[in-house]
Amino acid sequence: MIVVMTPGCSQADVDHVVKLVNEMGLKDHVIVGTDRTVVAAIGDKRNVDKSAIENAPNVDKIVPILAPYKVASKEVKREPSAIALLGPGTEVGAGHVGMIGGPCSVEDRSQLLEVAHAVKEAGAIGLRGGAFKPRTNPYSFQGLGEEGLEILAEAREATGLAVVTEIMSIDQVDLVCKYADVLQVGTRNMHNFNLLVAVGKANKPVMLKRGWSATLEEFLLAAEYIISAGNPNVILCERGIRTHEEYVRNTLPLAIIPAIKRESHLPIVIDPSQGTGHAYMVPSMCLAAIAAGADGLLVEVHQDPEHALTDGAQSITPEVFAKMVVDCKKISDALNA
Amino acid sequence: MIVVMTPGCSQADVDHVVKLVNEMGLKDHVIVGTDRTVVAAIGDKRNVDKSAIENAPNVDKIVPILAPYKVASKEVKREPSAIALLGPGTEVGAGHVGMIGGPCSVEDRSQLLEVAHAVKEAGAIGLRGGAFKPRTNPYSFQGLGEEGLEILAEAREATGLAVVTEIMSIDQVDLVCKYADVLQVGTRNMHNFNLLVAVGKANKPVMLKRGWSATLEEFLLAAEYIISAGNPNVILCERGIRTHEEYVRNTLPLAIIPAIKRESHLPIVIDPSQGTGHAYMVPSMCLAAIAAGADGLLVEVHQDPEHALTDGAQSITPEVFAKMVVDCKKISDALNA
Amino acid sequence: MIVVMTPGCSQADVDHVVKLVNEMGLKDHVIVGTDRTVVAAIGDKRNVDKSAIENAPNVDKIVPILAPYKVASKEVKREPSAIALLGPGTEVGAGHVGMIGGPCSVEDRSQLLEVAHAVKEAGAIGLRGGAFKPRTNPYSFQGLGEEGLEILAEAREATGLAVVTEIMSIDQVDLVCKYADVLQVGTRNMHNFNLLVAVGKANKPVMLKRGWSATLEEFLLAAEYIISAGNPNVILCERGIRTHEEYVRNTLPLAIIPAIKRESHLPIVIDPSQGTGHAYMVPSMCLAAIAAGADGLLVEVHQDPEHALTDGAQSITPEVFAKMVVDCKKISDALNA
Amino acid sequence: MIVVMTPGCSQADVDHVVKLVNEMGLKDHVIVGTDRTVVAAIGDKRNVDKSAIENAPNVDKIVPILAPYKVASKEVKREPSAIALLGPGTEVGAGHVGMIGGPCSVEDRSQLLEVAHAVKEAGAIGLRGGAFKPRTNPYSFQGLGEEGLEILAEAREATGLAVVTEIMSIDQVDLVCKYADVLQVGTRNMHNFNLLVAVGKANKPVMLKRGWSATLEEFLLAAEYIISAGNPNVILCERGIRTHEEYVRNTLPLAIIPAIKRESHLPIVIDPSQGTGHAYMVPSMCLAAIAAGADGLLVEVHQDPEHALTDGAQSITPEVFAKMVVDCKKISDALNA
Repeated sequence: MIVVMTPGCSQADVDHVVKLVNEMGLKDHVIVGTDRTVVAAIGDKRNVDKSAIENAPNVDKIVPILAPYKVASKEVKREPSAIALLGPGTEVGAGHVGMIGGPCSVEDRSQLLEVAHAVKEAGAIGLRGGAFKPRTNPYSFQGLGEEGLEILAEAREATGLAVVTEIMSIDQVDLVCKYADVLQVGTRNMHNFNLLVAVGKANKPVMLKRGWSATLEEFLLAAEYIISAGNPNVILCERGIRTHEEYVRNTLPLAIIPAIKRESHLPIVIDPSQGTGHAYMVPSMCLAAIAAGADGLLVEVHQDPEHALTDGAQSITPEVFAKMVVDCKKISDALNA
Repeated sequence: MIVVMTPGCSQADVDHVVKLVNEMGLKDHVIVGTDRTVVAAIGDKRNVDKSAIENAPNVDKIVPILAPYKVASKEVKREPSAIALLGPGTEVGAGHVGMIGGPCSVEDRSQLLEVAHAVKEAGAIGLRGGAFKPRTNPYSFQGLGEEGLEILAEAREATGLAVVTEIMSIDQVDLVCKYADVLQVGTRNMHNFNLLVAVGKANKPVMLKRGWSATLEEFLLAAEYIISAGNPNVILCERGIRTHEEYVRNTLPLAIIPAIKRESHLPIVIDPSQGTGHAYMVPSMCLAAIAAGADGLLVEVHQDPEHALTDGAQSITPEVFAKMVVDCKKISDALNA
Repeated sequence: MIVVMTPGCSQADVDHVVKLVNEMGLKDHVIVGTDRTVVAAIGDKRNVDKSAIENAPNVDKIVPILAPYKVASKEVKREPSAIALLGPGTEVGAGHVGMIGGPCSVEDRSQLLEVAHAVKEAGAIGLRGGAFKPRTNPYSFQGLGEEGLEILAEAREATGLAVVTEIMSIDQVDLVCKYADVLQVGTRNMHNFNLLVAVGKANKPVMLKRGWSATLEEFLLAAEYIISAGNPNVILCERGIRTHEEYVRNTLPLAIIPAIKRESHLPIVIDPSQGTGHAYMVPSMCLAAIAAGADGLLVEVHQDPEHALTDGAQSITPEVFAKMVVDCKKISDALNA
Repeated sequence: MIVVMTPGCSQADVDHVVKLVNEMGLKDHVIVGTDRTVVAAIGDKRNVDKSAIENAPNVDKIVPILAPYKVASKEVKREPSAIALLGPGTEVGAGHVGMIGGPCSVEDRSQLLEVAHAVKEAGAIGLRGGAFKPRTNPYSFQGLGEEGLEILAEAREATGLAVVTEIMSIDQVDLVCKYADVLQVGTRNMHNFNLLVAVGKANKPVMLKRGWSATLEEFLLAAEYIISAGNPNVILCERGIRTHEEYVRNTLPLAIIPAIKRESHLPIVIDPSQGTGHAYMVPSMCLAAIAAGADGLLVEVHQDPEHALTDGAQSITPEVFAKMVVDCKKISDALNA
């Protein structure tokens, strides 16, 4: 941490900051510049709230130096991690690129099985589908609950696809673990720390979606919650952020792919359906994500988007999904040739 | 809902949209303009996901007309609601302005009691203080838990202040209700719908903080979740949003005060501590909020901000709090004179 | 400047950074922490692009310490500046609060004179009105040009109000200076550096509006451009920023008032018309700004907003303006009593 | 345009709106829904400020239906436009993908010529380089001016590359046209309407960068300014937007590529250097842009980024540029195979 003093601060002000720094168990290092004095505080106290020093007289600002996350970072593990969704052949990360497709919600048995077979045939390794749906509107369709989970499990038996489904609350952990292969934590729950700890104690991989206004640091700290609770199998998923842009439902910031690969060993998967909100944008954003080095894609697929109960506007058909997977393969092959 | 067709769409495209609209149970109304055709869909189907129509051929966009919330809106209740935190004399809303102060976290008994007495003396009606703390960093101080709640309850007995404290998870509802007077749902949980339903079934007022990137519509829909689950006593709280601004921790959008008063009957309280992140900005933003018509303030107060365990940078001292309350009173009196 | 190295960097990496720092004419100061090494660079080289060092091997990031602006800051002038719009009695800043009202555009002679007399009577010191209008749409009304300036000057003669009007281009400087008292640089031109230099050479005060996504630092640097070109009379004006919020045209961040007062000696005026986009929000945001310590207000006033050629949605009537001025006076008087 | 009335409005309110609509020369069409009445206004009056109606009693909001741009849209030209930077073989758009590389600033003759030869050899069709630099800080290096333009022209003679350089002010148009092939309007000037009109009268293609908080609609309206002034050769360039993200200098929203291709016939080029701010992210974002269908790339290339006078942090070396161009070619070939 660096404490920057205001111009014209007194020696007493600096001494006071040094005292506060020492009280935190940190070593001080005062640097007197031409216009400013700064106090560098040395030592690893990531878990202490140092911002309180900002209140001391003539402190201008506090600049943290250490990233607050550790086990999610490359500081502790330099090689990228591969995480299997469901046994060998279903890895994402460390060179493995995995496709996950399926409807926003499980609507009924025949709908889900039809989509499952279609995405399997197209080359997917995972099946997405919501049984518990976080809906902004309390009167909207909230998902089929356990019945939806049963249908998902049946689809896994029929296709071999790993089931990826959202978990919204700590009391759903046991139930969802019984049926699903990957526990998805949605964007609205990225900061639901009790839920992060709960899935951190489960023995299934977690697909952690970035909060729509989370910083990169907060995203990795959410992963840190899960890992430090005991579950190292965290797959990060970017699904778009809130901005002023009006032609998308969310802005998809693909530069997070190289950023994550620089900061963390965890795989990063892209969701261009949530990430744009419009079906016509999904294929090009899928190709872009793969070209940029994404470890996988999470895509909403529906056989009849016009009648989808949820997220129809951003769902693509199985045909479009299949062509997209072929095109992604062409890009990967070309770049690796 | 209005469905806007692209220029040059065919009659078949329009007919197809009309069919989809009718399938939803809505009456269609086609308007052929000079450059565009639009299909107005008439009927109240707030709970149906109409965006799926966007996928139909030559549909340009969907424009919703009805606000999706209802019981939180002025459509159903035109007069502003007054909500008592703890019996008569502790109302906010409908002309009652209430001050709530206290530390970010309950750190220990003597700290809390000292602050409680100070804010009471300054004119507060409520005491804030966290026993369960949502911390971005898993290694940070997480609050005292039940011990903290006991200290808060003791402070209520000593001062008569209503206790406002955060609830982070559905399994804490019974415990927190046992000690607290007002259940606070934090910004990170505004979209935690399971928690909203859980506090909607509790018999205590709820202080609902706006998510830091929530729209006004989403904010009112979160209130709608709580009210429709059975609890009409929802106090809205603005605590700042995420923007590009670098000189604040959050941007405090005070125009939400007239916006809420136009859209809803619920009281709106402002939190300038979270809403700025810097103690030096808190007093002026308190005065601004009151001048703009806020129904109350939620302010972090600590007797020694430099040593606060959490949020020291944005905590003001009891002396600053007391002067601020006096100044707010002057403004209210002047405007009502 | 602080150069933060990545964990595990080599001594050669540090030596290389030290060499780059020295090449810039800065003195180095290496601090070896528990997890990180940082290189502090000492000396005032605000004008050198130091970010290039980010490209050196194993540099994690660069943290600037010095604010890049100087003459706009309190480093060089600690007391707040008062700037007269048009002679004694028309100051803003240093305790003087000035009201400026008028239509978005000058539409015709009778319209402008009527509004001018009304705002004068209400207590304004300045008259706003656009003769050259920056319009997003090339086909929209672009203002009356010189004819509009003549009408503005006539209104000044009739009322004594200072004329505040926008200047859009370097070739308009002489013309606008001939008629106006204060040169307004609009939000779209805050980064138009050639225009900043041009008004910096003019001998009239400048009302500089913040760019709608400018940082505070960029705002003060734009003022620095004007001041360093020779014109010290810069009035800052906040007019709202672009965010994700949907219920306003712009988000009005009033915390910039205490922030400017901490960083700069320049006056800060608030424009709640642009700052919200809706007439019904304007009065409460005016009161909030004054309560927060603003040095003045810039408000769009029109006698018939429903028929205004521009910005009708955010224009208030002379009656609403007059009541607002009275209420602002009540607040100022109460706080200063 | 659709005028949405508030619930419970009177017939007189509706009649008043109908009258205002008719006064604008628009035909009214009243639709009485279950909860709301709306007034549809029919006719093409894109250039009239209809928002004034918002001020009428019991109007809730105004929803525009027509896009305000026309000549930049597919309404008037359905096939994509190809625009030559400098004669045959230098097109972008309509299937032509063009690479433009070069330093942020022209620093001196040997620097520029070396980079020019390198990017030419790598396959570029254009050379970028700033002679007039928009610098946030008034004390920073502002470019070589005409000397820089002369060096750029010399580099064109030596390599055949088209020269793309920024124009900052209306008084530079003749000078820059004398030397350059493509006039770049920077992000800070996208809303400088006088400059847009000035380059609209020039006979060189214009590279128009999106303002960093401009909407898509505003971006296309800026193009409309240039085209309607007489210059149809507008190349759009996305260079990143301002958001809350902290790990990039700007957030690069690649979904604008499919959005532009849906709305407009103009080519869209991506600038991943400005669009991220970090050299390490540039190659992957280049590949992503090409995979998503971009018509070209604008990339900052410097032979010694650590010593670049401007934008060193985001400049890549000629070697990295050359490999990137090869990889982009692989992607294009694979997708077109």
